[in-house]
Amino acid sequence: MLEKVIELIDEKKFPALKEELKEMRAVDIAEIFEELDVKNCIIIFRLLPKDFAADVFAYLSSQQRKDIVSSIHESHLNDIVDELYFDDMIDFLEEMPANVVKRILVTATDEERKLINQFLNYPENSAGSLMTIEYVDLKKEMTIKEALNHIKKTGVDKETIYTSYVLNEKRKLEGIISLRKLVLLDEHLLISDVMNEDYITSTTLDDQEEVAQLFKKYDLLTVPVVDKEGRLVGIITIDDIVDVIERENTEDFQKMAAMAPTDEEYLSSSVFSLARKRIVWLLILMITATFTEMIIASFESVLAAVAVLAASIPMLMNTAGNAGSQSSTLIIRGIALGEVQLTDYLKVFSKELRVSMVVGIPLATVNFIRMAVLGNELSIAFTVSLTLLLATMMAKMVGGILPIIAKKMKLDPAIMAGPLITTIVDVLSLLVYFNIASVLIKL
Amino acid sequence: MLEKVIELIDEKKFPALKEELKEMRAVDIAEIFEELDVKNCIIIFRLLPKDFAADVFAYLSSQQRKDIVSSIHESHLNDIVDELYFDDMIDFLEEMPANVVKRILVTATDEERKLINQFLNYPENSAGSLMTIEYVDLKKEMTIKEALNHIKKTGVDKETIYTSYVLNEKRKLEGIISLRKLVLLDEHLLISDVMNEDYITSTTLDDQEEVAQLFKKYDLLTVPVVDKEGRLVGIITIDDIVDVIERENTEDFQKMAAMAPTDEEYLSSSVFSLARKRIVWLLILMITATFTEMIIASFESVLAAVAVLAASIPMLMNTAGNAGSQSSTLIIRGIALGEVQLTDYLKVFSKELRVSMVVGIPLATVNFIRMAVLGNELSIAFTVSLTLLLATMMAKMVGGILPIIAKKMKLDPAIMAGPLITTIVDVLSLLVYFNIASVLIKL
Repeated sequence: MLEKVIELIDEKKFPALKEELKEMRAVDIAEIFEELDVKNCIIIFRLLPKDFAADVFAYLSSQQRKDIVSSIHESHLNDIVDELYFDDMIDFLEEMPANVVKRILVTATDEERKLINQFLNYPENSAGSLMTIEYVDLKKEMTIKEALNHIKKTGVDKETIYTSYVLNEKRKLEGIISLRKLVLLDEHLLISDVMNEDYITSTTLDDQEEVAQLFKKYDLLTVPVVDKEGRLVGIITIDDIVDVIERENTEDFQKMAAMAPTDEEYLSSSVFSLARKRIVWLLILMITATFTEMIIASFESVLAAVAVLAASIPMLMNTAGNAGSQSSTLIIRGIALGEVQLTDYLKVFSKELRVSMVVGIPLATVNFIRMAVLGNELSIAFTVSLTLLLATMMAKMVGGILPIIAKKMKLDPAIMAGPLITTIVDVLSLLVYFNIASVLIKL
Repeated sequence: MLEKVIELIDEKKFPALKEELKEMRAVDIAEIFEELDVKNCIIIFRLLPKDFAADVFAYLSSQQRKDIVSSIHESHLNDIVDELYFDDMIDFLEEMPANVVKRILVTATDEERKLINQFLNYPENSAGSLMTIEYVDLKKEMTIKEALNHIKKTGVDKETIYTSYVLNEKRKLEGIISLRKLVLLDEHLLISDVMNEDYITSTTLDDQEEVAQLFKKYDLLTVPVVDKEGRLVGIITIDDIVDVIERENTEDFQKMAAMAPTDEEYLSSSVFSLARKRIVWLLILMITATFTEMIIASFESVLAAVAVLAASIPMLMNTAGNAGSQSSTLIIRGIALGEVQLTDYLKVFSKELRVSMVVGIPLATVNFIRMAVLGNELSIAFTVSLTLLLATMMAKMVGGILPIIAKKMKLDPAIMAGPLITTIVDVLSLLVYFNIASVLIKL
């Protein structure tokens, strides 16, 4: 597709290009934009019918939108904005500079402006920031037939018609009903008799992660968002929730690798933006390593007497670090998916204690054999292997419990991942190592 | 809810319990089962109407299903199985012992049995293993009115009626049409004139991760699955894809923390099953550490001359390991989300090179000051800091490139995460460290 489009642009065959574009999907055109320079993107964008242009616009990156806004005519921009779904328009307004927002709001009615301002004020990552207002509302006095006629009349501009919301005169939500029921049930029935009154809702300030949990648990396609008075203010659809799930997972991956989380894609991030996200934790963890230095320095006499002890430090610390990361990763993920609760800390502790013995004893045994085969003195091989067992056990218990403690302290459990656990476990392992060495090797 | 249910069971108020259960959601009852012993679960299960019992059954864990199967009457079991959606029934049959499967298949017709066997044979994690057969099929000669009547007649047993599939007499897929269009468009139009002929499909052997990418990219609610001849064999719905996305993410977290991936929940896994998933990588990585030992041992004379060099080994290796994990995590995630392509390796390499300098220089500077303040000799502080800079740079380039190489070699990029990168980077860092030390400290 890309080659065809480039060819048509190069040959300036714009009518043919226009036809070609009509056959394509909005998201695929947005993907082509990533490969073209700004000038060509704008040529393509101008050729699109305005409703389709709005669809493409909703898929573009912040920078691409800014490029387009700065080069298309104001009336054309207003047409595009009019065609956007409300949630996409809010996302767009949020990223534009104030003067562009002002220019767009000029054409809005007072009521629209009030609504836009209300939506712009919902905190990032809240249910309010995800919702849209294009839903179907019904009255409970309607029959199914009347409801279907109402949907036929108003449905074309709605983000979804698969769930309708039954509101009273004060816009308080009284029930929801699926299009499935409306189509399958007898058309003479009253909405009040068939609507579902025991539905799941969220409120504007709920965290998006909690909302995603509701979708996952109850297999929902949409969730209504209500205000404190129970009035319907918007709906959230599954396509936005799929994006939330992936974003939250990406953030967890980033935090667990000791980075500040970001929404930016890797390839479109600048070097300085990437570096800024990484350096803080690297600095903190590096400075924390002062403790390991102090411990090694204070046991300098032990090391000087048995220099070969130094050789095993990296192996001991890596193995303990890996063992701790395994445990903390499982617990962090379990908490994120709601499988591990705060009250499970005793279960986690005793499980990790047992797992760490089952894992640690073979590890220590293999290590003893390995070191003996390599010609180390048996007392040294034993010292290292015993430390390995104890360090693995400590690492797994620390790795299992710290994420739960973090959650308890209202911190994000994901920060208790590999890098931090490793640093903590290093200190513990070294203390164990040198103390065992002092006793066993009789210095 | 749980307290109420337990109270009613304890007081043997079964009619009241039955009423209470009717008001609840299937997934909530399944959650209550987790807190009760087998005996009480079976009491509750027997009180449920059979279609609702099937809903609850679909949410239960493999063990809970086995407990129930072994204690309910065969005819009751057959009723439940009949009520399950086809995809849930296949999942259930897959986990049951052969004799149970046989008992259930006895009541199936020849045609059903053939279909069940076909579905049981789709590989795990394939599109075939996710799909269900309860879809609405239409003919292109129908009018919209006829299509809606057909849906009214057959829709009640379908997993979704929001997309219908237009099939020819050989069951070849010719088009799809949404219920949205059927409801909104004029009822006299022909399906052939309004159906979408440019739709996304997947095939039975597609990997579930690729199918999930299609849902995410095109914001789909369902995807049709066709065989090699283009015949429709089933459909996949978004609720199952949401589960796939979370499962694939969980697997990536596990692999990236050097564990064998598993579907089992942490708390319901046995100690030995958890230990088995963890020990293989721990052993491999421990044995690989033999290289670091050999390097340290071969530089024993350097260490003996300047014993304080040993003290910085953990800090150097942790920082380099963390720096490498950051890069590999971003690239692994970028590949998983389709944001980083194999052809981007030069971009990644040059970006990591620049980021690593921007990150490494301040890190090295802070470390130099830190070590000087702590009273180290400046030549030693300089040796450690220069190594820190070079190790960080190597770590970030190795961490950035290895996941791409893994993908290129058709391996899972997720194995190139922190633990493996750390082990590789340890060897490189130690070599750099001792060589710089030998030169700079003039041994």
